[in-house]
Amino acid sequence: RYGLAEEEDQVGVVTGLAWTSVGGELLSIEALKLPGKGRMKTTGKLGDVMKESIEAASSFVRSISPEIGVKPPVFEKIDIHVHVPEGATPKDGPSAGVGMVTSIVSVLTGIPVKKDIAMTGEVTLRGNVLPIGGLKEKLLAALRGGVKTVLIPAENEKDLVDIPNNVKDGLTIIPVSHVSEVLKHALVSKPEPILWDEEAEEAARLASIASQSSNPNHPVAH
Amino acid sequence: RYGLAEEEDQVGVVTGLAWTSVGGELLSIEALKLPGKGRMKTTGKLGDVMKESIEAASSFVRSISPEIGVKPPVFEKIDIHVHVPEGATPKDGPSAGVGMVTSIVSVLTGIPVKKDIAMTGEVTLRGNVLPIGGLKEKLLAALRGGVKTVLIPAENEKDLVDIPNNVKDGLTIIPVSHVSEVLKHALVSKPEPILWDEEAEEAARLASIASQSSNPNHPVAH
Amino acid sequence: RYGLAEEEDQVGVVTGLAWTSVGGELLSIEALKLPGKGRMKTTGKLGDVMKESIEAASSFVRSISPEIGVKPPVFEKIDIHVHVPEGATPKDGPSAGVGMVTSIVSVLTGIPVKKDIAMTGEVTLRGNVLPIGGLKEKLLAALRGGVKTVLIPAENEKDLVDIPNNVKDGLTIIPVSHVSEVLKHALVSKPEPILWDEEAEEAARLASIASQSSNPNHPVAH
Amino acid sequence: RYGLAEEEDQVGVVTGLAWTSVGGELLSIEALKLPGKGRMKTTGKLGDVMKESIEAASSFVRSISPEIGVKPPVFEKIDIHVHVPEGATPKDGPSAGVGMVTSIVSVLTGIPVKKDIAMTGEVTLRGNVLPIGGLKEKLLAALRGGVKTVLIPAENEKDLVDIPNNVKDGLTIIPVSHVSEVLKHALVSKPEPILWDEEAEEAARLASIASQSSNPNHPVAH
Amino acid sequence: RYGLAEEEDQVGVVTGLAWTSVGGELLSIEALKLPGKGRMKTTGKLGDVMKESIEAASSFVRSISPEIGVKPPVFEKIDIHVHVPEGATPKDGPSAGVGMVTSIVSVLTGIPVKKDIAMTGEVTLRGNVLPIGGLKEKLLAALRGGVKTVLIPAENEKDLVDIPNNVKDGLTIIPVSHVSEVLKHALVSKPEPILWDEEAEEAARLASIASQSSNPNHPVAH
Amino acid sequence: RYGLAEEEDQVGVVTGLAWTSVGGELLSIEALKLPGKGRMKTTGKLGDVMKESIEAASSFVRSISPEIGVKPPVFEKIDIHVHVPEGATPKDGPSAGVGMVTSIVSVLTGIPVKKDIAMTGEVTLRGNVLPIGGLKEKLLAALRGGVKTVLIPAENEKDLVDIPNNVKDGLTIIPVSHVSEVLKHALVSKPEPILWDEEAEEAARLASIASQSSNPNHPVAH
Ligand SMILES: [Ca+2]
Ligand SMILES: [Ca+2]
Ligand SMILES: [Ca+2]
Ligand SMILES: [Ca+2]
Ligand SMILES: [Ca+2]
Ligand SMILES: [Ca+2]
Ligand SMILES: [Ca+2]
Ligand SMILES: [Ca+2]
Ligand SMILES: [Ca+2]
Ligand SMILES: [Ca+2]
Ligand SMILES: [Ca+2]
Ligand SMILES: [Ca+2]
Repeated sequence: RYGLAEEEDQVGVVTGLAWTSVGGELLSIEALKLPGKGRMKTTGKLGDVMKESIEAASSFVRSISPEIGVKPPVFEKIDIHVHVPEGATPKDGPSAGVGMVTSIVSVLTGIPVKKDIAMTGEVTLRGNVLPIGGLKEKLLAALRGGVKTVLIPAENEKDLVDIPNNVKDGLTIIPVSHVSEVLKHALVSKPEPILWDEEAEEAARLASIASQSSNPNHPVAH
Repeated sequence: RYGLAEEEDQVGVVTGLAWTSVGGELLSIEALKLPGKGRMKTTGKLGDVMKESIEAASSFVRSISPEIGVKPPVFEKIDIHVHVPEGATPKDGPSAGVGMVTSIVSVLTGIPVKKDIAMTGEVTLRGNVLPIGGLKEKLLAALRGGVKTVLIPAENEKDLVDIPNNVKDGLTIIPVSHVSEVLKHALVSKPEPILWDEEAEEAARLASIASQSSNPNHPVAH
Repeated sequence: RYGLAEEEDQVGVVTGLAWTSVGGELLSIEALKLPGKGRMKTTGKLGDVMKESIEAASSFVRSISPEIGVKPPVFEKIDIHVHVPEGATPKDGPSAGVGMVTSIVSVLTGIPVKKDIAMTGEVTLRGNVLPIGGLKEKLLAALRGGVKTVLIPAENEKDLVDIPNNVKDGLTIIPVSHVSEVLKHALVSKPEPILWDEEAEEAARLASIASQSSNPNHPVAH
Repeated sequence: RYGLAEEEDQVGVVTGLAWTSVGGELLSIEALKLPGKGRMKTTGKLGDVMKESIEAASSFVRSISPEIGVKPPVFEKIDIHVHVPEGATPKDGPSAGVGMVTSIVSVLTGIPVKKDIAMTGEVTLRGNVLPIGGLKEKLLAALRGGVKTVLIPAENEKDLVDIPNNVKDGLTIIPVSHVSEVLKHALVSKPEPILWDEEAEEAARLASIASQSSNPNHPVAH
Repeated sequence: RYGLAEEEDQVGVVTGLAWTSVGGELLSIEALKLPGKGRMKTTGKLGDVMKESIEAASSFVRSISPEIGVKPPVFEKIDIHVHVPEGATPKDGPSAGVGMVTSIVSVLTGIPVKKDIAMTGEVTLRGNVLPIGGLKEKLLAALRGGVKTVLIPAENEKDLVDIPNNVKDGLTIIPVSHVSEVLKHALVSKPEPILWDEEAEEAARLASIASQSSNPNHPVAH
Repeated sequence: RYGLAEEEDQVGVVTGLAWTSVGGELLSIEALKLPGKGRMKTTGKLGDVMKESIEAASSFVRSISPEIGVKPPVFEKIDIHVHVPEGATPKDGPSAGVGMVTSIVSVLTGIPVKKDIAMTGEVTLRGNVLPIGGLKEKLLAALRGGVKTVLIPAENEKDLVDIPNNVKDGLTIIPVSHVSEVLKHALVSKPEPILWDEEAEEAARLASIASQSSNPNHPVAH
């Protein structure tokens, strides 16, 4: 089953597209949220560039967290683990960036990722999508693997003229220029934004601490 | 005795299967739970891929901890040490993943692992079992070492046609596609799930702290 | 779009100028401010010299923080992430220093950077601007990329005689010898300085803590 | 004196047996217990495998600490330093494992190690003793160095047929299959086990903290 | 301007003298004091020997801090960043030691360094000045760069016979054997020593904490 | 002056003896005690073996601290910096061990080291002195450098037959087998031992904390 599109919509699991000397391949990107203290763990024999693309993805997601309904302090209380099987295959490059963002957003919001979508694109700290290489090989791999929809960088749209028609016919190819479009297409539902006012929250938190200390069930405490 | 099936059901000790240029071999995977602060220690001349497979195994187990009866905060108060003797032999690869999961679950739950079972399979962050290489050599080593039952990845089932009949006759070979099946077969009893509601627990914890502070024997404290 | 001047004034995004064996290039420098604990993260396949130039930029900015309206303790509560796409392209050298300073100041003050300006120059811990190499190639890249104004080190002014006239005609070239001039030209508005008296602030902080502890709603606490 | 059996029973000093291309040699293993915070320090130009064998030895000892009369929280308040002179000679391999365990147990319990005993054997996380190489050279070195008794892995017993009779006559050779046997033979007295009930201890600790806070000499405190 | 004597007396900026295969050169050493927690940061493509010379300089300054009017606890609340532009030029060697000490003392005391002085000399943990190499090239660079006064190690005084007369005529060359002489010559004024009695200070600090807790403005606190 | 015996008795400064391919040399070992948190810093281009010998020296000194009048908790509140000039000369080997111990003890006790003594010898965690190489070259260097007394390992006494008579006549050579003898000969006075009962001290400390909290000048606090 590995190397094929997912069989069901899953939380935190995204299909990326890799490009190596022997062709394109599907990449399963898995994120997990664990109780913790703000650490990021990455595994799967990832090269430095891919690790940095995960760091960029993570910082971008933190910077927009109220927009996806996540209170910023949440990040201090969780660890995020991103793993890319197969563990013995070296992987590198920045083009999994949009997949990393989607995977992290899915796991933070609990909103599943559509099972028959794949994606490729470098992502900047502002969420802009930068072009990638190997478009043809990646689209072929997507088709072969049973993917229905592929998100590609808008700046790669011009390369579509070189893609065989049967590939273009077999796939819905959607050019995107910002991660917000990626999330709109890839998640089964839209995250609910929240209002976040750091100072108001801090005041509320302090009040709550004071209130707990003087717990009414323990009048003389402590 | 090393290189043979275990002599009794033990907590935290699992028989894995390694495959090197000189054939298959039994691998004893040992996990230990120690009072600590959430650290993971790995020893046994392990390569980076095997170390990452232990990290993935550990994160997976943490993500399902209520299902095996372990409260998530437990992980903050223990260290887990995974060791793979013989210490001078280099070991690598992701295929010990299912063994790592089983060993960690056994040590956390206190449920022993069946002594005459061996296993091989990469594991993802969702607990899916991915195919491995060297099936034939591994099964031969299992037979030679006195193992009765071998768990293999379901995706390797197709490779069984190449395995000599005497090997298939001498072993019970069980294909598995998820770690939950591995645990069902490998542990001597089933872990008891618990309900875990983080917010309720946190409230209880705070109440308990307040209550301890106002210890009835020390009314004017503190 | 990458490799061209920005399309709008943005907070924390600065256009730098790189010089490689194949010519000059525009470099997008992105800074992000996140809740944190004073850490600096850098990504984008940056060499050691460029990483050190970011550290120097960051220390310089901290040393002048009241002049840009930022209270020094703020730095203990945030992390700053500086990323330079494209993530797979190696980048090095100290000449992005002025861009790093500008990017960090913009993100700390919330004041956008003018969209059609580019800059190059090493920066010292006192904010002095040191000369750079590859002036011609960098100016050509700026012109090609749609940049209108380029800030260059004053010590490079003498090299302008070798620059073709069409380049000098197409760009406003401004020599600068200190970062204060860079900020004056690059930010859309001037940061508002604050007065900062560390001892007075510390006293105020302690008073505030005491006051919170004796929250009027919880007279007996604790 | 270095390279000979110890002259008196000492706490934390164990004679190991090394095997190099130029023959066997006695190895003095020294452990020291210092006030600290649970750190392990290792010195003596030790290779990675020997360092890992010390980590395994240490985890094993922690896992059985009540059996040797040591309360588990003790490990949080001490550092253990294991040093193997001579500092300029590289040392490696897992076969000092039983010596490491013995040295650490001796230093934790304060029970001296018998002066005329030497030992060799890899140790697992469960305290099982695995076979080693170079038995003949190690026994020759033991004889030469004035050692009376040598503990060897039970799985190496079969190799004794190749050992010259004068060596076997000059030494008491004791095969062991678990570290518990090693400790029985090597320590001058038996450690006194304690009962350890973590929850009961935690409750006692909290009560004690509360009690200290309300110190009777300071009724209004604090 | 870089590579010339400073134009004005500055706090924390010292002119050092480097010696490479292509001759001598002026080196600008910059120190900055930031709110922090006792960390030392060094940048400027510095080799290990130069980094260690900064550590030695820093420890020496801490060890004499009352003599320069700095209370030892100050070091726990600041970070010191030492940078040596130009950032792309590799630098190494211990001979910048006296410059490092002077730069750190200047930044801690706020006393500027005289603008037309340069210095070279290794420094020990006791502040002794050890001899350096390349005296001739360094003095030539100083003269060329507009420096008026050069501090050299007393042990290098014997090498002055080989220096051309025009160099010796153009510079005031002052041999020094201890850093105290360096500071006397290089700083525009003398640091004011303080008395420091650690135990008395600790008592005062504790009293002050107690006093803050019972802040008179908040009688019921807390 | 470097490379000669010290001119006066100094605290924390010890003359060691190095042996390189070009002969013997005097080595000045400097230790400094700084307010801190139990860290050990080492500088002077030291190889791994010499760094480990400093760690062993430090642990040995901590283990005997009451015997030299130092309360064990002191180590948690100081950092120790050991530096060996000249900073550009690589140094390695374990034979400076006794010098490291002496230097650290001197700095902790404030007792100066005799100025005309030099020493060489590896040290174990128990303070035993192990033999060294290059005795002849080291003694020649000591004589040349104006040293009067040299401490050598007792196990090197047998090598004295190969030392020229004029060297033996010009030096007082004292063989030592334990660091306690080294300290007796090298320090200008004997450290005053203290009694140290950890549990009694802990009780006293807790009482003192309670007492400070209920400061009589602040009756209602806090
Ligand atoms: Ca594959
Ligand atoms: Ca990729
Ligand atoms: Ca084997
Ligand atoms: Ca494997
Ligand atoms: Ca490009
Ligand atoms: Ca650059
Ligand atoms: Ca030897
Ligand atoms: Ca060994
Ligand atoms: Ca230059
Ligand atoms: Ca230098
Ligand atoms: Ca020398
Ligand atoms: Ca030496």
